[in-house]
Amino acid sequence: MVEQITTSSPVYNFSAGPGVLFADVLQKVQSEMLNWNNNGYSVLELSHRMPEFSSMLMGVKQNLRKLLSIPCTHDVLFLQGGATQMFSTIPMNFSTQRDTVDYIVNGYWSRYAAKEANKYSPVNIVGYANDSASCPDQSELRLSPGAAYVHYCSNETIDGCEFDYVPETHGVPLICDMSSNFLSRPIDVKRYGMIYAGSHKNVGPAGLVIAIVRMDMLGKCRSFTPTMMNLTEISLNMSMLNTPPVFPMYFCGLTVQKLLDMGGLREMEKINMLKAKMVYDVINQSNGFYSVRVLGKNRSIMNIPFGLHNEEIQNKFLMEAKKAGLLGLEGHPKVGKCRASLYNAMPVEGVKRLVEFMAQFQIDNTPLKLCLAEARDTA
Amino acid sequence: MVEQITTSSPVYNFSAGPGVLFADVLQKVQSEMLNWNNNGYSVLELSHRMPEFSSMLMGVKQNLRKLLSIPCTHDVLFLQGGATQMFSTIPMNFSTQRDTVDYIVNGYWSRYAAKEANKYSPVNIVGYANDSASCPDQSELRLSPGAAYVHYCSNETIDGCEFDYVPETHGVPLICDMSSNFLSRPIDVKRYGMIYAGSHKNVGPAGLVIAIVRMDMLGKCRSFTPTMMNLTEISLNMSMLNTPPVFPMYFCGLTVQKLLDMGGLREMEKINMLKAKMVYDVINQSNGFYSVRVLGKNRSIMNIPFGLHNEEIQNKFLMEAKKAGLLGLEGHPKVGKCRASLYNAMPVEGVKRLVEFMAQFQIDNTPLKLCLAEARDTA
Repeated sequence: MVEQITTSSPVYNFSAGPGVLFADVLQKVQSEMLNWNNNGYSVLELSHRMPEFSSMLMGVKQNLRKLLSIPCTHDVLFLQGGATQMFSTIPMNFSTQRDTVDYIVNGYWSRYAAKEANKYSPVNIVGYANDSASCPDQSELRLSPGAAYVHYCSNETIDGCEFDYVPETHGVPLICDMSSNFLSRPIDVKRYGMIYAGSHKNVGPAGLVIAIVRMDMLGKCRSFTPTMMNLTEISLNMSMLNTPPVFPMYFCGLTVQKLLDMGGLREMEKINMLKAKMVYDVINQSNGFYSVRVLGKNRSIMNIPFGLHNEEIQNKFLMEAKKAGLLGLEGHPKVGKCRASLYNAMPVEGVKRLVEFMAQFQIDNTPLKLCLAEARDTA
Repeated sequence: MVEQITTSSPVYNFSAGPGVLFADVLQKVQSEMLNWNNNGYSVLELSHRMPEFSSMLMGVKQNLRKLLSIPCTHDVLFLQGGATQMFSTIPMNFSTQRDTVDYIVNGYWSRYAAKEANKYSPVNIVGYANDSASCPDQSELRLSPGAAYVHYCSNETIDGCEFDYVPETHGVPLICDMSSNFLSRPIDVKRYGMIYAGSHKNVGPAGLVIAIVRMDMLGKCRSFTPTMMNLTEISLNMSMLNTPPVFPMYFCGLTVQKLLDMGGLREMEKINMLKAKMVYDVINQSNGFYSVRVLGKNRSIMNIPFGLHNEEIQNKFLMEAKKAGLLGLEGHPKVGKCRASLYNAMPVEGVKRLVEFMAQFQIDNTPLKLCLAEARDTA
């Protein structure tokens, strides 16, 4: 039987997002909640019309540029509506009704993006992984000549399927939904026409989308586009076309500063690889007690979906994990099973607790052990 | 000379939004920032897939229903993108390309809403106040026969112009942008096809839109509508079509509970009327030192734009007010001048400080007093 952790132990949140945030960032947010920057008011009361906001925003942008080495060809935009809204924003801004748009599909979100784009432009699926257990190789991509852009999702949060390369599109703008692996490792920004990511994975609380867009992509928005989805207008208005989500922007600034202090994205990649290896190792060594569908080269370092051999044992696992302070291990409702998300803010200590729990749970739930327990009960 | 307030005095934030929030709500947010509801994690880390989120959301909805006496014919939706995005969402959801849509225009935001709607349906301006200093009377509304809906803005935040009646539309659905006077007084919800409001005035921080929609209005969304703007889908998915902005939703719940504890919206209206009267009184009694453009019956109880006789004295007023801890009194960049926003969370004490400052500033800056000071300086 798994030992029950006392309530004074820390809990670890493995949710796919909103999920775990850096403890010291949360402490800072708490400490200045009533008096932000000694201004006498809360950051939640900060108007985007105040000069204090503008200088905060400028600092956040500068630090993001530094963290990601964003070249001056690209602008940084702060948007609302989640990455899902971007699925519509993208064709409205970057293609005409007649342009073909290329989509690589290797899981739930890239499929959703392609379906949404199909409302606005003819969509060509140029690479397809039917089982969501792998990403198509470069050699399998059948790019359309003259496509307006190529879209892909670098890490499928639900399926746990992550690209191990950046697709080569031979000059066609490459657009990437990076929601769940943004800031997890270095990115070569200049290879992209646009990168976008929801905030509620590696950045902060929900309610913000960060888009990094090559500025020569702008200026071609379609006439029926809602003004709030017109990226040209948003860029010209410094992401303040209307009231922006001030609090997640502020939180983003704290997270980015934290990542710079930790040594930047090269350092984060090392830690993230280590954490993911710890979980995959316990799965690989479980003799099939735990299983992962995704092929080796595409196993995500951020989101690890795994199964146990039946639903009953899976539910027991989830229930006992929760009791042990390991939360949010349920898989996405669309696919079920279990999933551990190991975002930047998940400490190695939390992953250690998870793998120890997984190993112990396996020991306690092997047939021999269960027979013994049953025998004892009936004795 | 206005006495400088020491930094230990509280500051009062008169911004039009994001703006002042209830001090005790902020204290509660602070106190549970690291450990929400004794769950061991922050509300900023709360996943919308956790049962704890669903039960929180249900509580927020139930309390909003109670506070506003929302009939069971209407659903409550939580959206993103701000009220500005709603300007596009509305025609996409409630009219066809051929339907006429009626717009009453009495200021900046209602004009913007009409312009945006014009991308999607023929717009008929059915009531128009050119000077943004009044609202058209019911008798001046030239409603279109068979319009899909009538849209108006009950309180123009920038112009400080508030409707003193609910337009009668003879069965045509009435849609109201209530962003800046939502929750400031009771609302007869059943008279509306839809009410919507941005969160960053009377509800909480920026990043949330609350929409209260009559359910028989749904189901007519146009095919090219972005999924994230499809109100039918959002209603069917309990406002969780994608990751919702969890934190502003949680904050909304705390604010609504606070308003219920304070005695509800009838009580808030009394306090708001009192606070607005205090400011209008000092303006009315200033012999023109301070001036307001808006006609008496349409003077907003939430946002009070006012001018001084020239830009120099206005800038001096704003600078000295800021020194005195009275912040955010600048008018909107589009119109300039000064503006005091007196949302629910602005305490009577703050308004008292403002009117005392205004009266003293007038005394210190009348020609006679200035002559004396000049004489002293040159003596």
